Amino acid sequence: MKTQYCHAIEGTVTPAMKSASARESVSAETVMSALATGEAVLPCNPAHVRLEPVVAGRLFRTKVNANIGRSAYCSSTGEELLKLLTAVSAGADFVMDLSVGSDLGDIRRSLLAECPLPFGTVPIYEAWSRAGGSMASLTATGLIDVIREQAEQGVDFMTLHAGLLKKHVPMAIRRRLGIVSRGGAILAEWMSTYDRENPLYETWDSIMAICAEHDVTVSLGDGLRPGCLADASDEAQFAELDVLGELVLRCREAGVQAMVEGPGHVPFGQIAMNMEREREVCHGAPFYVLGPVVTDVAPGYDHITSAIGATAAAFHGASLLCYVTPSEHLALPTEDDVRQGIVAYRIAAHAADVARGLPGARDWDDRMADARRSLDWQKQFSLAIDGQTARARYERGRSQEPGDSDHCSMCGRDFCAVRTSGRLREKQ
Amino acid sequence: MKTQYCHAIEGTVTPAMKSASARESVSAETVMSALATGEAVLPCNPAHVRLEPVVAGRLFRTKVNANIGRSAYCSSTGEELLKLLTAVSAGADFVMDLSVGSDLGDIRRSLLAECPLPFGTVPIYEAWSRAGGSMASLTATGLIDVIREQAEQGVDFMTLHAGLLKKHVPMAIRRRLGIVSRGGAILAEWMSTYDRENPLYETWDSIMAICAEHDVTVSLGDGLRPGCLADASDEAQFAELDVLGELVLRCREAGVQAMVEGPGHVPFGQIAMNMEREREVCHGAPFYVLGPVVTDVAPGYDHITSAIGATAAAFHGASLLCYVTPSEHLALPTEDDVRQGIVAYRIAAHAADVARGLPGARDWDDRMADARRSLDWQKQFSLAIDGQTARARYERGRSQEPGDSDHCSMCGRDFCAVRTSGRLREKQ
Repeated sequence: MKTQYCHAIEGTVTPAMKSASARESVSAETVMSALATGEAVLPCNPAHVRLEPVVAGRLFRTKVNANIGRSAYCSSTGEELLKLLTAVSAGADFVMDLSVGSDLGDIRRSLLAECPLPFGTVPIYEAWSRAGGSMASLTATGLIDVIREQAEQGVDFMTLHAGLLKKHVPMAIRRRLGIVSRGGAILAEWMSTYDRENPLYETWDSIMAICAEHDVTVSLGDGLRPGCLADASDEAQFAELDVLGELVLRCREAGVQAMVEGPGHVPFGQIAMNMEREREVCHGAPFYVLGPVVTDVAPGYDHITSAIGATAAAFHGASLLCYVTPSEHLALPTEDDVRQGIVAYRIAAHAADVARGLPGARDWDDRMADARRSLDWQKQFSLAIDGQTARARYERGRSQEPGDSDHCSMCGRDFCAVRTSGRLREKQ
Repeated sequence: MKTQYCHAIEGTVTPAMKSASARESVSAETVMSALATGEAVLPCNPAHVRLEPVVAGRLFRTKVNANIGRSAYCSSTGEELLKLLTAVSAGADFVMDLSVGSDLGDIRRSLLAECPLPFGTVPIYEAWSRAGGSMASLTATGLIDVIREQAEQGVDFMTLHAGLLKKHVPMAIRRRLGIVSRGGAILAEWMSTYDRENPLYETWDSIMAICAEHDVTVSLGDGLRPGCLADASDEAQFAELDVLGELVLRCREAGVQAMVEGPGHVPFGQIAMNMEREREVCHGAPFYVLGPVVTDVAPGYDHITSAIGATAAAFHGASLLCYVTPSEHLALPTEDDVRQGIVAYRIAAHAADVARGLPGARDWDDRMADARRSLDWQKQFSLAIDGQTARARYERGRSQEPGDSDHCSMCGRDFCAVRTSGRLREKQ
């Protein structure tokens, strides 16, 4: 079977490219060209039958990923299914199942069967869960088995922390906060325990063969992403990034689609530089960023701290934004956290698309402005990212206001600037 | 009586400068110099006896303003007092009473008596409330009376929309959304009705005399701030800004402290340019911005859309951020909205301070990183902007997890990267 990348470099437009292009209001050839240069990905495992293909890359609308999945003790398949449906209805573009613990194949099968979005995983989680917390039981063979099984199940993209090498571990340990990637930390401990190289890196050719066979898009994980502002843009982060850049080329040689994962926690003023550096070092591969969080001091509000960073990241070149929920750093997200995370990230993605001048992006804002000018509240709610929440706030205020419904309780009728502006316009 | 500006240009350090400098960890001379050049303000009406002076300017920590105040039908003095106390305890630096309707003197007296923060108003609101919605009853004399009474009461800073001139009104009417400033819209309708110039502009010298006498800081209002992305950075906005620049100089000539208010709704990519333009056109006067909101499509979440813009604004030079609450565009904010608005804006202000390299700003983040490294949850909650919310989320997750308390429910004990990192560090 040929991957979408192979079709693209041969100049063939596939049904998946056509389908994805229709959602972007661009031609299928535009999608094909962006895939051929490697600056876009179209994660699309043929075994994922429910999939409606989505393209991610700088030429296209900025996409939002929702992480779901149970932890060892919290949540269940049923709860995670609810989170999936919430993520889809709130407008997520991609979803990742980060479940750990037992019966991971079953929960993934249930989620994949219901999921119309590109579906991602982190295979080291299953490998480590199977190893039962024993380093000796974590093997390269075990990892390859997991990757193959997940590919056969229909996983569209996989995070592989293959760029974190043995030589990077001392750099990471010297940091303020060390390693904050779950996968990165497990691999670092394994390498340190056995004084051996990263098993994903060492078996890369075998992994490539599986990914090429099932058209699994590789998401090159950043095991050394900074976990606090002090660790941002340091030698550990950029040493790993250099290896990720090499692996992008090895993916392309193997006909495999690749994107690159990025930080993390980054001061606002370093975001542009980080985006430019990835583009250069990683040969234009799409950048898939987690936030970044722009201050460490607001646990409980990291959907906000990170939406700030995500807007800047997307404006400066990131193509896929991994949401962060209000529970980040504190607890496994609830269904409501999922909804709040998606809303914050749709704001970030859209604000960036408007700012970078993506054709047609501002039309949505213009329609909202027109609904505001005509004080058409129902239209405002139907256009809003979350109209239900907007309506509830409006109604709560209105209950205290007398008279008709052509104003809101913020200013009241006599102080409504939009009404005054309307009178002025009529006079002209 | 001499204003803080007059003292500063004479080289005198006042008790207010000393008090403000202590909160910034800078010398009183640093505050004095910044006041003397007009690049900082220290709103400080001697009649406001409860005031603990705060300085705003690019050399200092970015400040957050909370708008409170009742509308004609909603809320009461008691509810607004609660909002004030919430704003203070949540960490607001400035507060404005935007109340309209009757008995405004009484509510202001109650708020001022409890308010340790610089306290601002918009006098046109009281003048228009007294005029009872009749254009004929709104007069320059009436406006001056309100300004004098409020100055005598102890108001530290006042928004005066004196830069919106008659010639600007046609530009504003041609816009997509027209005028969205309450004060700006009232003045525009008045000018249009009587074909006369802005009464604030025409009586500027009398206003200056009152402000100089009571050391009221002028906040030059932007009556033509854009109310949607489509209207941002247009001829109306910048024509008014030019007049605000002239008025900054007239304030300085009169010995009056001045800052300038700014947009509004601005695409993310235009924020830096807007900050630079204000600095140049307004002779370095501190920029006091409302957000800006970076997309129009998220009513109910405008604390987030605007915290994104506010971070960029402060990073690029704004000194005072006017918060926006989740009720913006929909209803009068509740007490909980006030709290949410402040938290979002403290995040924006601090993230910008770290990014622009304000000395010592990142220490807070570093202490949080250290608390995370040592898995010291109590320390994390005590350092958090809103520790109560952080603790509640953590506890909710923990209730499902077995065992000790050195991890959270997000990853669980076996997948905790911070624990793994700790083991690696110990091995070295």
